[in-house]
Amino acid sequence: MSNETYARGVEKINSIMPEGAENLQKGLGKIAPNMANNVLEYIFGTIYSREGFDLKTKQLITVTILATLGNAQPQLKYHIKGALNVGITQEDIINLMEHISGYAGFPAALNGITAAKEVFSELEKTS
Amino acid sequence: MSNETYARGVEKINSIMPEGAENLQKGLGKIAPNMANNVLEYIFGTIYSREGFDLKTKQLITVTILATLGNAQPQLKYHIKGALNVGITQEDIINLMEHISGYAGFPAALNGITAAKEVFSELEKTS
Amino acid sequence: MSNETYARGVEKINSIMPEGAENLQKGLGKIAPNMANNVLEYIFGTIYSREGFDLKTKQLITVTILATLGNAQPQLKYHIKGALNVGITQEDIINLMEHISGYAGFPAALNGITAAKEVFSELEKTS
Amino acid sequence: MSNETYARGVEKINSIMPEGAENLQKGLGKIAPNMANNVLEYIFGTIYSREGFDLKTKQLITVTILATLGNAQPQLKYHIKGALNVGITQEDIINLMEHISGYAGFPAALNGITAAKEVFSELEKTS
Amino acid sequence: MSNETYARGVEKINSIMPEGAENLQKGLGKIAPNMANNVLEYIFGTIYSREGFDLKTKQLITVTILATLGNAQPQLKYHIKGALNVGITQEDIINLMEHISGYAGFPAALNGITAAKEVFSELEKTS
Amino acid sequence: MSNETYARGVEKINSIMPEGAENLQKGLGKIAPNMANNVLEYIFGTIYSREGFDLKTKQLITVTILATLGNAQPQLKYHIKGALNVGITQEDIINLMEHISGYAGFPAALNGITAAKEVFSELEKTS
Repeated sequence: MSNETYARGVEKINSIMPEGAENLQKGLGKIAPNMANNVLEYIFGTIYSREGFDLKTKQLITVTILATLGNAQPQLKYHIKGALNVGITQEDIINLMEHISGYAGFPAALNGITAAKEVFSELEKTS
Repeated sequence: MSNETYARGVEKINSIMPEGAENLQKGLGKIAPNMANNVLEYIFGTIYSREGFDLKTKQLITVTILATLGNAQPQLKYHIKGALNVGITQEDIINLMEHISGYAGFPAALNGITAAKEVFSELEKTS
Repeated sequence: MSNETYARGVEKINSIMPEGAENLQKGLGKIAPNMANNVLEYIFGTIYSREGFDLKTKQLITVTILATLGNAQPQLKYHIKGALNVGITQEDIINLMEHISGYAGFPAALNGITAAKEVFSELEKTS
Repeated sequence: MSNETYARGVEKINSIMPEGAENLQKGLGKIAPNMANNVLEYIFGTIYSREGFDLKTKQLITVTILATLGNAQPQLKYHIKGALNVGITQEDIINLMEHISGYAGFPAALNGITAAKEVFSELEKTS
Repeated sequence: MSNETYARGVEKINSIMPEGAENLQKGLGKIAPNMANNVLEYIFGTIYSREGFDLKTKQLITVTILATLGNAQPQLKYHIKGALNVGITQEDIINLMEHISGYAGFPAALNGITAAKEVFSELEKTS
Repeated sequence: MSNETYARGVEKINSIMPEGAENLQKGLGKIAPNMANNVLEYIFGTIYSREGFDLKTKQLITVTILATLGNAQPQLKYHIKGALNVGITQEDIINLMEHISGYAGFPAALNGITAAKEVFSELEKTS
């Protein structure tokens, strides 16, 4: 991929999560540098940079996918935080989990609420 | 559940899919009458009737969950059609599948596109 | 949904887990009151209140689903405890996990046994 | 594995599905002879031959797992037929799918009902 | 992404599947041009172009993932064909499915064998 | 199953993980003796003892399946360690996770990298 896609990805992740690119490179860059680049280039520089949905809607879609998967708790918590950062409310997140209960089952919804609860109370502590 | 929840569910499904309640009862009511009622009361009378997200957003969330699950093709096609009915564009659906590719994998996205393609061409034939 | 369904759900959950409804409302009622109600009305007031299978069989089915899903450990532990409460033996639970190994794979079975082990030893401590 | 386990598996599958072992070997024995043997030895000669649950309960457990997995339609239809053969009623199967809706989501339940519907109507034709 | 990544992806897919890039663009390029590009750039131009595993091993890994997912039959058949093209034998594919049976369950393995069977007999017809 | 299959399984697991059989029986033998035997007989005495793939390839396949499943972290860590024991490099494991990202999604890959990271640093401490 190109430097341009990478740069676009850095900008995009940072618009969702302050110092997102830096922290990603810190956590992943040493053990898996290619994957750190792929996250920035494919996730944020490509799909997140596609025109069409606004950032808030994109973030809602990501949280929906992660809660549905049910086995991606670290990513789910990360993106719930990102969703709140771009203007989705705590109530929206809980409503979303209720919506998920019907299609992916109650356990997926309840574990999504647990993830949300943890994010909400971390934010309370740091605010 | 109550008659009120059921009635609200009937109204809601019909606002997404013309004659939705009638067709659901035709298809499911004989073999699984309780499930037909549950769909109307829980899916449409409860979660779809929750305030918060507008109908378009709810429909986008449903399509996202179903494409992520990857093993719910009949429901996915149904709700892609429903999404188009409430104003989501064909381009939105395809962009959504691209977004899904990063989190649930390319096969989920590609099979979502196949489902969309089938819905789009059915609609073309009947229009 | 109606008060009647809710009341039936409260009674049903309490027949599986002492103070089940109260604890559910304590844990979930503040952050996600609608979901707390849905659990009581749909899970316990509707599907658990359906005639047909006896309570022991229903509890066996629930544990089977949760162990198969493989990403619902909190719910799995909860319902293993509930299963023991309604007369399913520890040996039954382990036999069930062996049965699951063939269809959902050995990891699902082994993680189900781990959940069971944790429940069994918690019960030993409190007895 | 031993001849004894194999023989026990043959007997067990045949008690659920007439000519089960013969048909399995016909379908699978040429392309994947080891897997045909594994099915007979591990699934039917080992887990299905474990004491504890009676055959009817084992069959109920198997159908529950397969409907929960959601991507095992051929096996689900096979074991719904097997369940009916050992005395589970059509109504039980539908009630089971309703129970599954709460934990694995409505699409899993609805696709389980579709599988059941196909089995029921095949049986009607051949009876 | 860059033209270089795209070009590398085209070359890579064509080394697994004759006219792979052309057919991908034919099938996907009209309805989802971005996804056609992503497949070529991310799947084939990035991960498939990573040094480390040889092409045969990469193809074995892809087939393993797809059979494990269990809901990606079109992609599974495609990549079984690709695996045979780069020197994996039919017997390897069947042995792989047996290995999968232990970890992802017998249904995943059996449906993988069904996919393999279909690919093998298509190849027989066209040879 | 037979004593011969069991003995073959003991030998095989020990060739991947020193004292593997002994530790398995210690951890599982008391609570679930049948499952301990099944693991040794089916996983190691049957599928791992099949001719065809060499041990290194088998171990790569197992890690691929477990990372794809996404909800088998204890087994994934165990088999990453086993993979390193039979000659797969740390770099191979990370490359594998990158390959998985395209087919099973980025979260599966990232959680696989987390598992790998934990195994790598445990090994560093004990070496």
